[in-house]
Amino acid sequence: MTQKAFQDYYPDHLSHCYGCGRLNEHGLQIKSYWDGEESVCTFYPKPYHIAVPGYVYGGLIASLIDCHCTGTAAAAMYRQEGRAMNTEPQLRYVTASLHVDYLRPTPLGVPLQVRASVREIKGRKVVVAAKLLANGEVCARGEVVAVQMPEHLIHN
Amino acid sequence: MTQKAFQDYYPDHLSHCYGCGRLNEHGLQIKSYWDGEESVCTFYPKPYHIAVPGYVYGGLIASLIDCHCTGTAAAAMYRQEGRAMNTEPQLRYVTASLHVDYLRPTPLGVPLQVRASVREIKGRKVVVAAKLLANGEVCARGEVVAVQMPEHLIHN
Repeated sequence: MTQKAFQDYYPDHLSHCYGCGRLNEHGLQIKSYWDGEESVCTFYPKPYHIAVPGYVYGGLIASLIDCHCTGTAAAAMYRQEGRAMNTEPQLRYVTASLHVDYLRPTPLGVPLQVRASVREIKGRKVVVAAKLLANGEVCARGEVVAVQMPEHLIHN
Repeated sequence: MTQKAFQDYYPDHLSHCYGCGRLNEHGLQIKSYWDGEESVCTFYPKPYHIAVPGYVYGGLIASLIDCHCTGTAAAAMYRQEGRAMNTEPQLRYVTASLHVDYLRPTPLGVPLQVRASVREIKGRKVVVAAKLLANGEVCARGEVVAVQMPEHLIHN
């Protein structure tokens, strides 16, 4: 994809997150994009992202949903304000709460897709719903309540 | 501690979990113990388990709560049945749902403690509540609904 991901717009000092920071060499470095009204992230688990043999670790699933949804919250807010993600003032979100329902075991060895949509924007808060798919089947559903990051954290 | 951790009783083929498998060299290898009616797990995040500078990644917190609570579910069930964790039939739990409320940023660079207690045991289901502390302060609260693992997964 030549399109820039949401996370590619994050300033350097906010790009070390284990889940989505492009500068964290140990991290997951997830990338999120718009796909119409939904946002989408594709992730290839490593063999060691295992729970029981053959299945993906639930904590990884929670992490993917978490970072994809906070990224989606930021992108949605920029979109609502009608401006590009590289314009000031910068908007970043942190997680106030995370909920994941594991519907079925998620197979290891295939790409995972997280798709999210904004449920509500209210002041500094954005509620984002997500589903995680493997082989086209929904394996988990999640919801993140994301809150705008305080100014002093954004500006380092 | 000379006491064996809950996870030390897991059979080898169920000890590869990224969060709590003692045989996963890339994983977190958490260890959980009873401390009276609560279970406790102490974890030392790596510098790369970062969210924004100075603070711990929320996905790591979710992972710690997840694995500590499923381990606690198993230990609680053995305790209720009045038998040791190395006796048959083996009991292991998977996560049906995970909820985490992030109350305040969790400082990076200090040990984290997860403390959990059983809220309910009902058939194959155990509900476990957890809190995560840093410097003695509660930074996150979580709840896991754990469900007994199907026989065919336990016996490989």
